[in-house]
Amino acid sequence: MTKATDYPLLDRIDAPSDLRKLDVNQLPALSHELRNFVVESVSRTGGHLGSSLGTIELTIAIHYVYNTPRDKLVWDVGHQTYGHKILTGRRHQMPSMRKQGGLAGFPNRAESEYDTFGVGHSSTSISAALGMALAARQRTRNSSASDQPPATKAAGQALADPAQGPEKVVAVIGDGALTAGLAYEALNHAGGIKADMLVILNDNDMSISPNVGAMNKYLARMLSGKFVSGAREGSKRVLSHVPSMLELARRTEEHVKGMVVPSSLFEELGFNYFGPVDGHDVESLVAVLRNVRELKGPVFLHVVTRKGQGYKFAEQDPLALHAIGPFDTATGKVLKSSKSNRPTYTQVFGQWLCDMAGKDDRLIGITPAMREGSGMVAFEQQFPDRYFDVGIAEQHAVTLAAGLACGGMRPVVAIYSTFFQRSYDQLIHDVVIQNLPVVFAIDRAGLVGPDGPTHSGSFDFSFMRCLPNIVVMAPADENECRQMLYTAMQIDGPSSVRYPRGNGPGVDVDELMTALPVGKAQLRREGKRVALLAFGTLVEPAQQLAEELDFTMVNMRFVKPLDTELLESIAQSHDLIITLEENSIAGGAGAGVLEYLSQVGATTAIKLIGLPDEFVEHGSREELLEYCRLDLAGLREQINVLVAAQAA
Amino acid sequence: MTKATDYPLLDRIDAPSDLRKLDVNQLPALSHELRNFVVESVSRTGGHLGSSLGTIELTIAIHYVYNTPRDKLVWDVGHQTYGHKILTGRRHQMPSMRKQGGLAGFPNRAESEYDTFGVGHSSTSISAALGMALAARQRTRNSSASDQPPATKAAGQALADPAQGPEKVVAVIGDGALTAGLAYEALNHAGGIKADMLVILNDNDMSISPNVGAMNKYLARMLSGKFVSGAREGSKRVLSHVPSMLELARRTEEHVKGMVVPSSLFEELGFNYFGPVDGHDVESLVAVLRNVRELKGPVFLHVVTRKGQGYKFAEQDPLALHAIGPFDTATGKVLKSSKSNRPTYTQVFGQWLCDMAGKDDRLIGITPAMREGSGMVAFEQQFPDRYFDVGIAEQHAVTLAAGLACGGMRPVVAIYSTFFQRSYDQLIHDVVIQNLPVVFAIDRAGLVGPDGPTHSGSFDFSFMRCLPNIVVMAPADENECRQMLYTAMQIDGPSSVRYPRGNGPGVDVDELMTALPVGKAQLRREGKRVALLAFGTLVEPAQQLAEELDFTMVNMRFVKPLDTELLESIAQSHDLIITLEENSIAGGAGAGVLEYLSQVGATTAIKLIGLPDEFVEHGSREELLEYCRLDLAGLREQINVLVAAQAA
Repeated sequence: MTKATDYPLLDRIDAPSDLRKLDVNQLPALSHELRNFVVESVSRTGGHLGSSLGTIELTIAIHYVYNTPRDKLVWDVGHQTYGHKILTGRRHQMPSMRKQGGLAGFPNRAESEYDTFGVGHSSTSISAALGMALAARQRTRNSSASDQPPATKAAGQALADPAQGPEKVVAVIGDGALTAGLAYEALNHAGGIKADMLVILNDNDMSISPNVGAMNKYLARMLSGKFVSGAREGSKRVLSHVPSMLELARRTEEHVKGMVVPSSLFEELGFNYFGPVDGHDVESLVAVLRNVRELKGPVFLHVVTRKGQGYKFAEQDPLALHAIGPFDTATGKVLKSSKSNRPTYTQVFGQWLCDMAGKDDRLIGITPAMREGSGMVAFEQQFPDRYFDVGIAEQHAVTLAAGLACGGMRPVVAIYSTFFQRSYDQLIHDVVIQNLPVVFAIDRAGLVGPDGPTHSGSFDFSFMRCLPNIVVMAPADENECRQMLYTAMQIDGPSSVRYPRGNGPGVDVDELMTALPVGKAQLRREGKRVALLAFGTLVEPAQQLAEELDFTMVNMRFVKPLDTELLESIAQSHDLIITLEENSIAGGAGAGVLEYLSQVGATTAIKLIGLPDEFVEHGSREELLEYCRLDLAGLREQINVLVAAQAA
Repeated sequence: MTKATDYPLLDRIDAPSDLRKLDVNQLPALSHELRNFVVESVSRTGGHLGSSLGTIELTIAIHYVYNTPRDKLVWDVGHQTYGHKILTGRRHQMPSMRKQGGLAGFPNRAESEYDTFGVGHSSTSISAALGMALAARQRTRNSSASDQPPATKAAGQALADPAQGPEKVVAVIGDGALTAGLAYEALNHAGGIKADMLVILNDNDMSISPNVGAMNKYLARMLSGKFVSGAREGSKRVLSHVPSMLELARRTEEHVKGMVVPSSLFEELGFNYFGPVDGHDVESLVAVLRNVRELKGPVFLHVVTRKGQGYKFAEQDPLALHAIGPFDTATGKVLKSSKSNRPTYTQVFGQWLCDMAGKDDRLIGITPAMREGSGMVAFEQQFPDRYFDVGIAEQHAVTLAAGLACGGMRPVVAIYSTFFQRSYDQLIHDVVIQNLPVVFAIDRAGLVGPDGPTHSGSFDFSFMRCLPNIVVMAPADENECRQMLYTAMQIDGPSSVRYPRGNGPGVDVDELMTALPVGKAQLRREGKRVALLAFGTLVEPAQQLAEELDFTMVNMRFVKPLDTELLESIAQSHDLIITLEENSIAGGAGAGVLEYLSQVGATTAIKLIGLPDEFVEHGSREELLEYCRLDLAGLREQINVLVAAQAA
C-alpha cells in the first residue's frame, strides 16, 4: 500500500477551497490519494470502509463544484463521509475516528460547519435538505423585505449572507435509504412545491444484502437499459448523454409547463431526472454537477457507484468490509479478533429464532434491513418462506406484523432499540391498542458504543412502559434471553425482550425452552438493609456488588408488569431500595418501581440508577458504561454514596 | 328526506350474505337507500359524513363480490365505513355511533369480525393487508405440510379454513393517505414480493383541502387524460375500458415476465394497475371487481369518488360536512351549536401564530394535513410563503422543521398529540439530539373523545420527558397557552406546548406576549398539609379543590425542566403531595416529580393522579374525564381517599 507521505495533492487540501484550486484533470489523481488515505486510515481505526470508498469521486466532485460550506451538502445515514471529513479539515484527526473524544463516525454539526446535518439513521437527508432550501429562500426574501439585520447564526453554525442569494442545497441518498417512507414523503413534498434542490441518488451497483422491494427492482431496470458500468468507455458514453446547459434548461421549462411526459418515477414525483451517470468518473461528475448546479426546481441525479470501489478486498466482500475493525491493508484481513468465544445476544436470538420456528409453524421473522445485524442469516436459510426483510422501513415492519398476527401468525420483529423509535405509532396504533401477539426482539438496547448518540438505545423502557397491554422483559444473561423469547411467544398479546449489543456474562444456554412466569422477578440473594433491584444488563454487576456488600439482590426480569408482590415485601424489609437499569432514568424501569411503591404507600427510600439525562457521545461500550458510572466500579461508587447518604 | 321505513332492500340485509342474494341490477337502488340511511343516521348522531357518502357504491360492490368476512377487507383511516357497518349487521346500532358504549367511529376488531383491522390513523391499510395476505398464504402452506390441526382463532377473530385456499385480501386507501411514507413502504414491499392482494385507491375528485405533494398532482394528471367524471355516459365509457378476464390474465402474465413496460408509477412499483373507474357506478364496480378478484399478484385499482356524493349539501361544502354534529337533513345545517363563546385552544394557537409571525420573520408554520384542525387557516392566508402543509407525513414534517432550523428559521410544527407518535424518531434523531430550536404545538393532548383510543393523546409527557434537551410545557389556561408559545420561541432548543381539545377555563388572553421563566412553576395558593401539583388541564379543577379543602396548589407549568426549588420547599412543608395530569401515570409528569424528590431524599408521601394504564374507549370528552375520575367530582373523590389514607 501507499505510505502516509504519498499524498502530494491531499497534503495541500485543508479545506474545500484548496480543492477548488486544483485543475479538474488533477482530480483522478486526488481520488486515488483520497481512496488510499481512507483505506490506510480505516485499517488502523476500523470503521465504515465500503461506503466511504464508494463515494470518493462523488465527494470530491461535489466539494469541487459547490461552494461548501456556504452551499449545503446533506449526507444520508452518514457512514460514507470519511472522504468528506478528510477534505474538510479533519484529515489529521482521522486516527481518532469513532474513538471517545475523537471524530464521530457520522456527520455532526458540532464537529464541523461542513457537517450540515447530524445523521446516523437513514432517509432523513431529503427532508432536511428541503428544509434548508426553503430556509435559504425565506432568508433571501426576509433580507430584501426587512430593515432588520439578518440572523447570522443558526444552532451554532454560521448562516450564509442572504444578500448574495440563496445558497444551493444538495442531498446525497443511497438506494437502500430510498426504501424508507420518510424519503418518499420528502420527495413528494419537494416535487410538489418545486423547491430548488438537488437530490443525488448514490446507487450502489453491488448491494450488501439482496435487493429488497419494488424500488430496487425499478432502479435495476433503469440501469439495465441505459448504463454500462465500470469501464471508461461506459462513462464516456454516459457523459455524452449529459445534456448541455441549454438543453437542460429547456427540458426544465417544458417539465414545469407539463409538456414533457414524465419518463421516470422520479419525474412523476415532480423532479427533473438525470442519469444514470458513472459515480467513479470524477471529471464527468464535475461536468454533470456544473450543469445541474444552475438549474431551478427539484433535480434528481442518479449516480451509480460501487461499494468498496478501488480496494479489491472491499470490492470482493463488501459485506465483510462494510464496517470492520483494524485490518491488514495487504490482505484485507482483520488484524486480531478481540471477539469472545461467548455467543453474543444477537446470536442467542438467531439460534432461538431457528429453534422456535421449527416448533411453531406460525412464527414469521421480520427485519427492517438488518439480516446480519439482527442474527437472521441462518433463519433466512432454513425458513426462507417465513423470513421477510422489508428494507429500511421500520413503520411497515411493525404494521405488517400486526396484519400477520390478525391472520393467525406469530410474527417476531427483530429491531434495534434506536430504530424501534421509527415505528412508535405503529407499535401503539396497530399492535398495542389491538392487543395483537407480536414479539419484539429489541437488540442494541442501552449504550451501543462507537456509533454515538444516534444509535443509543436509551429510551425503550420509557417509551414502552407508558403503553397498556405490552409485556416488557430484559434478560440478565444469554439463557434468560432465550427463555424470555420463548415466554414472549406464549403471551397472547404484545411483548418485547430487550438486550444489549455484544456478549452477556457467558452462562450456558439451555436448549430446552421453558416459559417464565409473567411478571415474576427472581430473588437472587437475601441480604441486609439494602436491596438492589436490577434490570437486564445490570443484574450481573449488581449480583457481584450485593455479595460484596451483603445486600439483597433481585433480577427483576419484567419491566412491565412489575412483580408487585415482591416489591412490597422488599419494601417492608429494607431501608433502601436501589434500582439499576441501562435506560434513561426518566420514565424508565426504576421509575415504574417508584410509581408502584409510592402508590401503595411504601416509605422505604428508593434511589434510581440508570442513564443520565443527556446524549452520551461515542466511545467503546465499556468507556461509555464507565462514563455513565454503570460499570462495576462506577456502580460500586454510586451505591456506596447512596447507602452512606441514607445512613447519615 | 326519506323516512326510516323507506329502506325495502336495506331492511333485508343483516349481513353481506344477504346482500349477495340481490341481483346486480338492484344495487343502484340499494346504494340510494344506503346513502339515505347514512345521511339520516348521521343527521341524528353527528359523525363523519362526507367520506362515508363517497364510498357507498364501493362498499356495496366489495361486499357483493368478495366473500367477507372470509375474505379480508381492510379500510384505511376508517372514517368512511358507516356504510360498511350498516351492511355488516350494525344497522340498528347506528344511533349509538361514537357515543360511550356504542359503535366506534372507526373499524374495531372487537366490534365485528368484518372489521379486520382497527384504524383511526391513516396509511396503515396496505401494510396490514399485506400481512394478512402473507398469513393466508402461510396458513395454506402450513395446513398441507403439517399434521397438526390449524389454528382457528387469531386475536379473538375466527380464521378462514386454510384447506379451502388462502382468503382474498383487499385494502381501500384514500389519495390523501397515500402521502404517508408508510403506504409507500408497503407498496414497495408488496410490489417487490408479488403478494396476492388488491389495493383500491379511493381517489376523491374533490379534496377537502388543496392538493398537497407531487403524488396528488400525478393522480390529477392521470385523471385528466383518461376519466370523464360524473355522468352515466362517462361511467359506461369506463366500463367499456375494463379488460375482460382473459385480457387481464394475459396482461398480468406479461407483466410478470417483464414484457410490459410499466405505464404508471404504481406499475413501476410492481403492481398491476387498472383504472381509473367511476366509483359511483356500482354495477361497473361489481364487474371490475369480479375480474380483478381472480388475478394473482399485487393489483392496484384506481377508483374515483366524490366526497359527500349524493347529498347536495355535502357535495357543496365537503369541508364543513366532513365531520359534523347532528344536522337538519333538509338544509344541511347543524342543529344547534353547543359551541362556547370562549375560544378553543386551537384558536388561541392560531391567533398566536399569526401575531408571532408578524413579529418574527423567521417563523415558519408546518402542518401535516391538519390546516383546519390545527387552526392555521388565517396563518396560511396571511403568510402563504411561510406556511407548509406537507400532507399526511408527520415524519417529514419534523425533519423538514429540523432542516429549516439549521437554515436559521424558527419552525413551529402544529401536530396532534396522537399523530406526534408518528414522528418520534424524527423528534429524537433530527431535532433533540441536535438541540435545534423547533417549537411543537401539540394539540388534542389528553382525552380526546368520540374518536376513541386511536386519537387519545395520552402518552406525550411520557415519551418526551425521557428525552434530553427538550422543554415540555402545559398551559393551565388560554392566556398561558399564548405566553408559553411565545416562551417556546425564545428558547434556543427544542420545546413543546401541549394543550387539549376544545375550550379552556375562559380567561382573557393578553395581546401582549411575555416570556415565562423556564422551569418555574406558579404557586397559586398556600394551604395546609397537602399540596396539589397540577399540570395543564387539571390546574383549573385543582384550584377549585385546593380552595375547598384548604390545600396548597401549584400550577406546575413545566413538565421538563421541573421547578426543583419549589418542589423541595413544598416537600419540606407538606405531609402529602398529589400530582395531577391528563397523561398516562406511567412515566408521566408526576413520575418526574417522584423521580426528583426520591433522588433528593424527600420523605413526603407522593401520590400520582392521571390516566389509567388502559386504552379508554370512545365517548364525549366529559364522559371520558368522568370515567377516568379526572372531572371535578372524580378528582375530589380520589383526593379525599388519598388524604384519608395518608392520615390513617
